[in-house]
Amino acid sequence: MATKFLIGIDLGGTNLKIALVSLSYQIKDKKILSTKSFSDKSKLICAIADAVASILVDNKIARSQVLGVGIGLPGPIDAEAGFVHFFPNIPGWKNVNLKTILEKKIRIPVRIDNDANLMSLAEYRLGAAKGSKNSICLTLGTGVGAGLILENKLYRGSSFAAGELGHLPVNITGPKCNCGGIACLEAYIGNNRITQKVKNEFGRDIPLEKVSDMANQGNKKALKIWDDVALYLGRALVAVVNLLNLETVVIGGGVAEAGDLIFKGVRKIVSEQAMSVQAGRVKIIKAKLGSDAGMIGAAIFAREG
Amino acid sequence: MATKFLIGIDLGGTNLKIALVSLSYQIKDKKILSTKSFSDKSKLICAIADAVASILVDNKIARSQVLGVGIGLPGPIDAEAGFVHFFPNIPGWKNVNLKTILEKKIRIPVRIDNDANLMSLAEYRLGAAKGSKNSICLTLGTGVGAGLILENKLYRGSSFAAGELGHLPVNITGPKCNCGGIACLEAYIGNNRITQKVKNEFGRDIPLEKVSDMANQGNKKALKIWDDVALYLGRALVAVVNLLNLETVVIGGGVAEAGDLIFKGVRKIVSEQAMSVQAGRVKIIKAKLGSDAGMIGAAIFAREG
Repeated sequence: MATKFLIGIDLGGTNLKIALVSLSYQIKDKKILSTKSFSDKSKLICAIADAVASILVDNKIARSQVLGVGIGLPGPIDAEAGFVHFFPNIPGWKNVNLKTILEKKIRIPVRIDNDANLMSLAEYRLGAAKGSKNSICLTLGTGVGAGLILENKLYRGSSFAAGELGHLPVNITGPKCNCGGIACLEAYIGNNRITQKVKNEFGRDIPLEKVSDMANQGNKKALKIWDDVALYLGRALVAVVNLLNLETVVIGGGVAEAGDLIFKGVRKIVSEQAMSVQAGRVKIIKAKLGSDAGMIGAAIFAREG
Repeated sequence: MATKFLIGIDLGGTNLKIALVSLSYQIKDKKILSTKSFSDKSKLICAIADAVASILVDNKIARSQVLGVGIGLPGPIDAEAGFVHFFPNIPGWKNVNLKTILEKKIRIPVRIDNDANLMSLAEYRLGAAKGSKNSICLTLGTGVGAGLILENKLYRGSSFAAGELGHLPVNITGPKCNCGGIACLEAYIGNNRITQKVKNEFGRDIPLEKVSDMANQGNKKALKIWDDVALYLGRALVAVVNLLNLETVVIGGGVAEAGDLIFKGVRKIVSEQAMSVQAGRVKIIKAKLGSDAGMIGAAIFAREG
């Protein structure tokens, strides 16, 4: 019998990442396409179908060898029905039955879920949260997403929308957030907000990697940028840890590349300000699977549901 | 065969409440003792054992007719081991194996848990959260306690300390809390803080029921007191609802007696500021079982574990 495979897809506002994955969740091949060129919904759906076809042809694999396609998507998803509610950062997607549409096109079973959920699933099964009964996995980027593993299972909430750590209010008053909330965490530490703050502080655009370098060389303004990120994130995590008494907090995503500039401050705040039992139990660690986590999580979900 | 019963106990800093409970969780008899007179741990443990003996004698029930004794306690408890970590508001209890000590004295199986957890269990099984897969049940009093029901089960966290809603930070800066945290919800809306605020505002002590009456008659200062409670509580609930996507938020405890003075504001904040999917799903309602919830929850836990 021919070897079986899975396909894991991670769709974001910038890229569509697709991987051919073994049943032991090793990535055999991957491709990255820009999603910016797909201006509307049906073009993007065609691009997903084409990417699936193309990765199969390139690897000389028959459709019948693929057990399932999993897709992580940047917004609230009804993972049971395979239904997209909407994408905050990609216009034109409202109430789309993506699973059904795509299964007709590619004739392989499709499962879809929120990208942060699938990343958390991957980190729990194969990465930094392995062995933790209760954990949260954060991705710090343009948005601040998160997925919760509670009692060894992905926790989705009553309408598949749990895990919106980016929309925890961290202040009574503060900036209005895109979501309609006030003083949400994301309105302080989303990639764009940090970039804007850097511009205000230094009078010019500086890439965040460079700001990290400057901070590591002792530049006070640059250190302050990261200290503030750690402060807001740390306080939100005090809330989460006091409420959920987790074993592990996994932090990944582009902004987390600042490493110790963020992690040291976050750990200090949680250890000093969370309640003693909760603070004593939790570890705060870096994500292990990097940018592959979404694709691996999608493959796990495609197979195991 | 003689009818079987359960005993449910709710121990607080002020009262010890004990109930004889049927297997269908109806209260057959109850007693309330003051705990203030029991200055130390061993006296309080004796008082619990005496209360159990006395409610049995009064109702002509044999020890062998009692399937179990459940006790709700005001602090973090290892509910599996039957172990008290400590009580924030009762001195002298640190690392006490209460289950074992008490079982030796009363020769009936004992189970202990955090009081807010047991109240939530009762409201979920028989009260306001009945039928909700995911809910939180708050008790607003001296402390702000809460218990979480997730996926139809009491969620306790990795060291039995989950549900500390009172220690969600609601501001980046603010009053230092007894727990070591900063700007915790409890530091704004704990009973004592509201009472202090009333004193500052009106220049004298006024019982909170009277402040409610004044607010209902249109007194602006009194209305502001409750509006502020609703604001802080509402913002903390936006955090919880965005993170956990709950169906039901149940609010009980003495401070919740202010009723619509709090509920209207809290509902408005959550409906306007939580994310649309989450806000559309959640109902915010008053607890149904009143001050019996703790005893009923303790009886449920004694029987079902």
